[in-house]
Amino acid sequence: MSLPSPALDRRTSGEESEPSPEETVRRLASGARQAARLLARMESKARDRALLAMAAALRRHAAAILQANRDDVERARAAGLRAALVDRLLLDEVRLERVARGIEQVAALEDPLARAVRSWRRPNGLEITEIRVPLGVIGVIYESRPDVTADAAALCIKSANAVVLRGGSEALETSLAIGRVLAEAAQGEGVPEGAIAVVPTADRRAAVALMHARGWIDLLIPRGGPELIRTVVEQASVPVIETGAGNCHIYLDASAPYEMAERIVLNAKIQRPTVCNAVETLLVHRDVAARGDLARLGARLRELGVEIRGCPATREVIPEAVPATETDWATEYLDLILAVRVVESLDEALEHIARYSTGHSEAIVTQDLAAARRFVREVDSAAVYVNASTRFTDGSEFGFGAEIGISTQKLHARGPMGLEALTTTRFVVFGDGQVRE
Amino acid sequence: MSLPSPALDRRTSGEESEPSPEETVRRLASGARQAARLLARMESKARDRALLAMAAALRRHAAAILQANRDDVERARAAGLRAALVDRLLLDEVRLERVARGIEQVAALEDPLARAVRSWRRPNGLEITEIRVPLGVIGVIYESRPDVTADAAALCIKSANAVVLRGGSEALETSLAIGRVLAEAAQGEGVPEGAIAVVPTADRRAAVALMHARGWIDLLIPRGGPELIRTVVEQASVPVIETGAGNCHIYLDASAPYEMAERIVLNAKIQRPTVCNAVETLLVHRDVAARGDLARLGARLRELGVEIRGCPATREVIPEAVPATETDWATEYLDLILAVRVVESLDEALEHIARYSTGHSEAIVTQDLAAARRFVREVDSAAVYVNASTRFTDGSEFGFGAEIGISTQKLHARGPMGLEALTTTRFVVFGDGQVRE
Repeated sequence: MSLPSPALDRRTSGEESEPSPEETVRRLASGARQAARLLARMESKARDRALLAMAAALRRHAAAILQANRDDVERARAAGLRAALVDRLLLDEVRLERVARGIEQVAALEDPLARAVRSWRRPNGLEITEIRVPLGVIGVIYESRPDVTADAAALCIKSANAVVLRGGSEALETSLAIGRVLAEAAQGEGVPEGAIAVVPTADRRAAVALMHARGWIDLLIPRGGPELIRTVVEQASVPVIETGAGNCHIYLDASAPYEMAERIVLNAKIQRPTVCNAVETLLVHRDVAARGDLARLGARLRELGVEIRGCPATREVIPEAVPATETDWATEYLDLILAVRVVESLDEALEHIARYSTGHSEAIVTQDLAAARRFVREVDSAAVYVNASTRFTDGSEFGFGAEIGISTQKLHARGPMGLEALTTTRFVVFGDGQVRE
Repeated sequence: MSLPSPALDRRTSGEESEPSPEETVRRLASGARQAARLLARMESKARDRALLAMAAALRRHAAAILQANRDDVERARAAGLRAALVDRLLLDEVRLERVARGIEQVAALEDPLARAVRSWRRPNGLEITEIRVPLGVIGVIYESRPDVTADAAALCIKSANAVVLRGGSEALETSLAIGRVLAEAAQGEGVPEGAIAVVPTADRRAAVALMHARGWIDLLIPRGGPELIRTVVEQASVPVIETGAGNCHIYLDASAPYEMAERIVLNAKIQRPTVCNAVETLLVHRDVAARGDLARLGARLRELGVEIRGCPATREVIPEAVPATETDWATEYLDLILAVRVVESLDEALEHIARYSTGHSEAIVTQDLAAARRFVREVDSAAVYVNASTRFTDGSEFGFGAEIGISTQKLHARGPMGLEALTTTRFVVFGDGQVRE
């Protein structure tokens, strides 16, 4: 924490001119920092009451929110936004109800601050307890899904953090409407003013200001496509958690049983190809190719509409496969495309993964205990599977209740992030006059 | 982890020209990354054997190391380095023996990778275990204390991390000599080549290259003065842990007993004023000033050579105090100087701390349970004390055995960092063919 600089706290009071995007962000971030101190003192019961009020307010103000959304959607269509993106942006009563229920589910989760991490007594009588506390102010930069506004606000209030939200320009009116409704309802239950802030401008300079608000923002989470995440990670000077880049691999070991291999590969590629835990490259032991299993699996994948890009050995048994290039091994397709490579050995598979993986999720299909043990020991990814689909890398599948994102970095949080990722700890030490010798 | 770029892996083989500092760092970092994969597979017993061999080698090669150190010291004196800095740089047999024993103590600590964090079973039968694993490659940028070379290398080998060390230019020959001896001894016990690397150039560009080695360096730790730490935190694009900035406060509550208050304040200010957990500002409830305790404490502090910089109310009872300015409240003196401010209430003390603290260590002296509870709840610093000296914020005082530094940031590690701060986790999931519905 650096010292708040008075220059950053300049208000525009008294001036008639519009504040700059930078000033707007600083005002919101400074307000959020003030709010965070008060919020940290709220008991969890009061925070849960605020969450329930937020959910109820979304329902009560559904008409106004949906009207704001219709305006956003109209603008987006007029601007020629792709239909898939317009759909992501679109809210209706069913989706809004799902958002409200999501907030109620967050309220029902265990308070992430309730339990101390550890507590011990030193030989000199000092009693040390490591307690869990909120991070302070969370910044979230996301794209055009307006439901993120509500999800992120709920997770932050649950963990007693203030939040500054900066959504995509297409969803600006919807996000502002949701933000206003949530903030007002939360304040009605004692959440301090400024604890839920939506940046009210689509100006790119506002996002840049948020990335550089050192001393105001304790953690910045980018949620969205690879482009957005890369920009934030590279440019931000505030702490960031990198999420979601998933070039995931499945390795079919020599001993992989065909039925299980097929079930897992089809699930990981086809069930939802656009998400980060979908498989992108299949590595196949040469014995699997030699006994015809790869040809059979390839035919099944093609039947289901999957384009295969293969190494030369793959193309010998799946002649329809497109030749794979170096780029294919490094690409997260997020589409019905699968890169396939035949390897000589587990070692070669491990080498390939070490070289091309983004460290998200990898799986082995095997009956061989030694191969399974080596795979889980040597693959350095957030989640490593034996005989299960990579699609399980997900907060709710892991049983965490809520998910803020899936961290593909190693510091602070790794893999699916539950509420704990929005907390830090402090050491509280009780003595009776101890001094250091 | 981003994909290793072939451009970064360019070797200078075949060329006769000297490699650039950037090329040197990239070669070392790339070698360290290779080594890290092998090192992660070494059992802890083998790593401990390597540590003992490293300690023995330091003793065996003491003459060569001390000769390199004499060269460094001579150069530093010739260049007119201040005596205090020359002393920090100086090694002798006693100091070298202490370094060797330090490595043996690290070997005797529990393996930070030994215990799984948690393990559970999902309703669908998936068995999930969160295991602790090394971060990979640690970079350390430090100043002229050559013992850091050995300390950091030992902590990294203990936690199965490779390390790239970049010490101060004044200690370059000593660090290189220590690094060579340690790396050779470690390799003799199976530690892979490249796992302990010392950057062999004092060129500033080498430090900059280390700060930007994304995908090669998993964590960069700056150790040294505030200037060094600020530079690294602001410039690095690799993950950094900020350490050591300590503008620490003690608050004497209305109920503070005089003897205890004096003992704690003297210890926190005088026992070792140059370290980050020494107190810099004393906040005093007006009742303490009114009953003469502040005047008495001020006289005692001045007797012991402490310069006092006080607010107007302080100067009423300690007339010799220098008037304190806004800058004093924000300054980490690291010297026999103490800023003193009389406050109206606990609230005013909490406000002052929230505004000026660097989030390191703060203490309250009190007999009032409610005041103690509010203080530990509302002060958001890494360590918060009731009736004990701030000087206890230290890895060995906390019982952690070893300390890599004291984190003043909130992500990943906070407060004294033990070996665990050099680790991350992974989720290992065993199934028998599960796929996502």
